[in-house]
Amino acid sequence: MSTTLNNCRALDAHDPLRGLRDQFVLPEGVIYLDGNSLGVLPKTAAARVADVITREWGQDLIRAWNSAGWFHLPRRLGDKIAPLVGAGAGELVATDSTSVNLYKVLSAALSIAAEDTPGKKTVVSERSNFPTDLYIAEGLCRERGYRLQLVETDGIAAALNGDAAVLMLTHVNYRTGAMHDMAALTDAAHQAACLAVWDLAHSAGAVPVDLRGAQADFAVGCGYKYLNGGPGAPAFVWVNPRHADRFQQPLSGWWGHAAPFEFTPGYRPAPGITRYLCGTQPILSLAALECGLDVFCAAQSLGGMAALRAKSLALTDLFIELVEQHCAGHGLALVTPREHAQRGSQVCLSRGEGAYAIVQALIKRGVIGDFRAGDGAGHADILRFGFTPLYTGFEDVWHAVGHLKQVLQTGEWKTAEFNQKNTVT
Amino acid sequence: MSTTLNNCRALDAHDPLRGLRDQFVLPEGVIYLDGNSLGVLPKTAAARVADVITREWGQDLIRAWNSAGWFHLPRRLGDKIAPLVGAGAGELVATDSTSVNLYKVLSAALSIAAEDTPGKKTVVSERSNFPTDLYIAEGLCRERGYRLQLVETDGIAAALNGDAAVLMLTHVNYRTGAMHDMAALTDAAHQAACLAVWDLAHSAGAVPVDLRGAQADFAVGCGYKYLNGGPGAPAFVWVNPRHADRFQQPLSGWWGHAAPFEFTPGYRPAPGITRYLCGTQPILSLAALECGLDVFCAAQSLGGMAALRAKSLALTDLFIELVEQHCAGHGLALVTPREHAQRGSQVCLSRGEGAYAIVQALIKRGVIGDFRAGDGAGHADILRFGFTPLYTGFEDVWHAVGHLKQVLQTGEWKTAEFNQKNTVT
Repeated sequence: MSTTLNNCRALDAHDPLRGLRDQFVLPEGVIYLDGNSLGVLPKTAAARVADVITREWGQDLIRAWNSAGWFHLPRRLGDKIAPLVGAGAGELVATDSTSVNLYKVLSAALSIAAEDTPGKKTVVSERSNFPTDLYIAEGLCRERGYRLQLVETDGIAAALNGDAAVLMLTHVNYRTGAMHDMAALTDAAHQAACLAVWDLAHSAGAVPVDLRGAQADFAVGCGYKYLNGGPGAPAFVWVNPRHADRFQQPLSGWWGHAAPFEFTPGYRPAPGITRYLCGTQPILSLAALECGLDVFCAAQSLGGMAALRAKSLALTDLFIELVEQHCAGHGLALVTPREHAQRGSQVCLSRGEGAYAIVQALIKRGVIGDFRAGDGAGHADILRFGFTPLYTGFEDVWHAVGHLKQVLQTGEWKTAEFNQKNTVT
Repeated sequence: MSTTLNNCRALDAHDPLRGLRDQFVLPEGVIYLDGNSLGVLPKTAAARVADVITREWGQDLIRAWNSAGWFHLPRRLGDKIAPLVGAGAGELVATDSTSVNLYKVLSAALSIAAEDTPGKKTVVSERSNFPTDLYIAEGLCRERGYRLQLVETDGIAAALNGDAAVLMLTHVNYRTGAMHDMAALTDAAHQAACLAVWDLAHSAGAVPVDLRGAQADFAVGCGYKYLNGGPGAPAFVWVNPRHADRFQQPLSGWWGHAAPFEFTPGYRPAPGITRYLCGTQPILSLAALECGLDVFCAAQSLGGMAALRAKSLALTDLFIELVEQHCAGHGLALVTPREHAQRGSQVCLSRGEGAYAIVQALIKRGVIGDFRAGDGAGHADILRFGFTPLYTGFEDVWHAVGHLKQVLQTGEWKTAEFNQKNTVT
C-alpha cells in the first residue's frame, strides 16, 4: 500500500524527536534538505553570540579570556562533540578548519608510519573522497616522499596489502552518501600494519560513530554540517590517546604549547589532544558552534545518536520510496546504497542531464538540496538531498518529493532561468 | 613646564581623529590600554553579526554563499587591510590564524630558498620574537632540514651574512614595543640573498607599513589587535606578487584551488594570493572583523595611517613624559625606545619586582594594561600599555598615569589579592 500524506503526518506526530525541531529556525516556505552542507540556525545562537559580542568582548574585553572561559572553549566544545563520535572526554578539540586539522593528523600519521613501518611509502584513499582531503594528502605526500594511491571503493582492501602506510577515508561519501564500515576497514588496515585516518564531515551528528570501539587512529570532522555550528564553524580533531602524546603535529602554535603563557622561545607540546591546537581561535564562531552542540546534549535524553539514526534511516527510506513511487520514468537513478549499514543521512539521485537545472527549479520552489557535478569518468551529475533527523520531518519529505515530481512532469527545469550556473553552488 | 590635565583635554579637543572614538564601545569606568592584545568593540559589529546570523545564515542558509557574498569575504576584507600595510588590491587575504598563516609563508619562503639559494640552511630570527612565531619556525626548520638561529636585535645584520636563507621578524616587538626599520632590514636581507618574512601583528592599524615600498617578500598579521576584529578574528596573509604564483603553500585546501567547485581530485593552485586560502572560514568572525576594518576606511578621509601615527606618537610621548614626571623614584624603567622611528604604539615599563601585581591593581582601578613575564635571561618583568589612536584619548593617558602613581604611592599592589597569578593573562 502506498504511503500517503496522512501516513507522513502520523510519523511526525509519533516522532519522539519531534520537539527538537522547535530548537531551530526553519525559514517559512522552505524545505531544507541541505543540512549536510550547512546546518540550520539553532534558536539560541543569535542571543548567545550577541552576549559574547556586547558583554564578553565589549565590556570584559581582554579579561574575558578568563572571565568568559574563552581559553577553554576548544576543549569544552570538544567534550560535547566526543560522545557523538565515540570519543572520550578530553580527547577531542574544536579548532581550525577540517582541511587544516586533516593536515595535522595526516602529518602525525606519516611521522608515526615513518618510525614504525619505514619501508611503506603509500597513502591509500578513495578517488571519490572529498577533493579537499585529497589536495591535503597530495601536498603532504609530495613533501614527505609518499605516493598517494587513489582506488575505487571495492579496491580498498586489496590496496592495504604491501606498501600502504596510511589509509585515509571519509566515513560517509559527500557525493553518494555511501557509508564505510569503519570498524572493519580500520581492522583491515591494522592487520596490514597501516594506520587509519577518518574524516567524519558527513557523519558527526548524523550517524553513530564509535572511534574508540573501532580503534581508529585519527579523525577530523566538520562543525557546520550536521552539528549546526554556523557558516565556517570551527572543525574538530581527535587523536587516539595511544598516539596523542607521541607526535607533535607541524602547526606548533602557542595554544598547543605545554605552558602557553610562559612565553618561552622553545616549543614544548602540551600533553594529549591540546597539542593539536595552534593559533588563536575565532571566539564568535566557537560560541555559535556550542549552540549547535547543545541541541545534541538535549537529544541525549531522547535516545541520543541511536534515536537520531533510527529517524534518519526512516527519513531516507521514505524519500527513496516516495521518489520511486512518484517520479518513476523520469530518468532518476538511486546512487545512495539501499542497505542501511551502507547509508549515511543523505540520498543522491543521478540523472544523465538536467540535474543542475532540476535542483535550481526545486530551490525556486523552496526545496533546497544541492547539485554535485559528475566527473566525466563514470560518475554522473547528481541531485543531493540531506536529511537531518534533528529537524527534518516526514511531511517535509512528502512535500519535497511532490515538488520534485512536479518539476519533472512540467519540465519547468528546462527554462533558461535554471540552466545558468553560478560560480558558487 | 609640566603638562596638566587641562593640556590633555585641549589635545583631545583639537584632535582631528577624536570623532572616531564614537565608533567604538568603551566600557564605563575603564581606561583601556590593551588594544594591542584585544581591540575594543566597533559599534556596528553587534548588529552586523546579528544580521549574518538571523538573515544570512538563518534565512538564506546555503544560498548565502552567493547571496551574501560569503565566498568573497577573505578577499574583500583583504582589500580593506591592504592600504593599511602598503599592499595592493588583490594581494592579501583575511583567513585562518596568524600562526597558521606564518606556517604557509615560511613554508613558501623555504621552498623558494631551496631553489634559489640551495646551499643556505639557516632561518634567522630574534630571540625576543613572539614565541608562537618561533614555535612555527622551529617545527618547519626541523622538517625541512634548516637551522633556526636566534639572535639579539643588534646581531641581526651580522647574522644575514653567510648561511641565512630567510629572515623572519616581527615588525613591532610584542614585549618592548620596539619597531624595526622594515625597509633597511629587508634591503640588507636581499643584499645577502636572503628572503624577508614579516609578522605585522603589532603593526597593522597601529603604525604605517609599506610592504611594497620595502620590497618585503612575505607578511602575516593579526585581526584582533589594532584592527579591532574581535576575539580570535581571522588573521591575514600577504605575499609579494613576484612570489605569489611561484609556490604552493602546503595547506592546499579547497578554497585555494583554481576551480574549487569543480570538485576534481587533483590540486591546482589558484593564481596569486588566493592559493594561500585553505579550508572554510568562520563567517561570523569574518563579519565582525569587517566592522573593525570599516573604521579604518572612515579614517582615510581624516589623514589615514599618517594621522593615526602622529596621534599614536603624541599619546606614547605623553605617557612617557607623565610617567617620568609623576612616577619617578618607584623603580620603573622605560623599555620602549624613545626614538620615534623605533617605537610602535605601546609603551613598556620594566620593574624588578611587583610588575604583575601592579598591573592587577591598575586593572582593579579600571586601567587595563597587561603584564609580560621576564625570561630570567636579561629581560625583566614588564608592564605593557597599548595606545590605539582610533579611540585612546589624551585625557585617558593623564588618568592612567594618575592611577599608576597612586598604586605605587599607596603600595596597594602589595596585598595578596593582586599577587595570585591566573593561568591565563
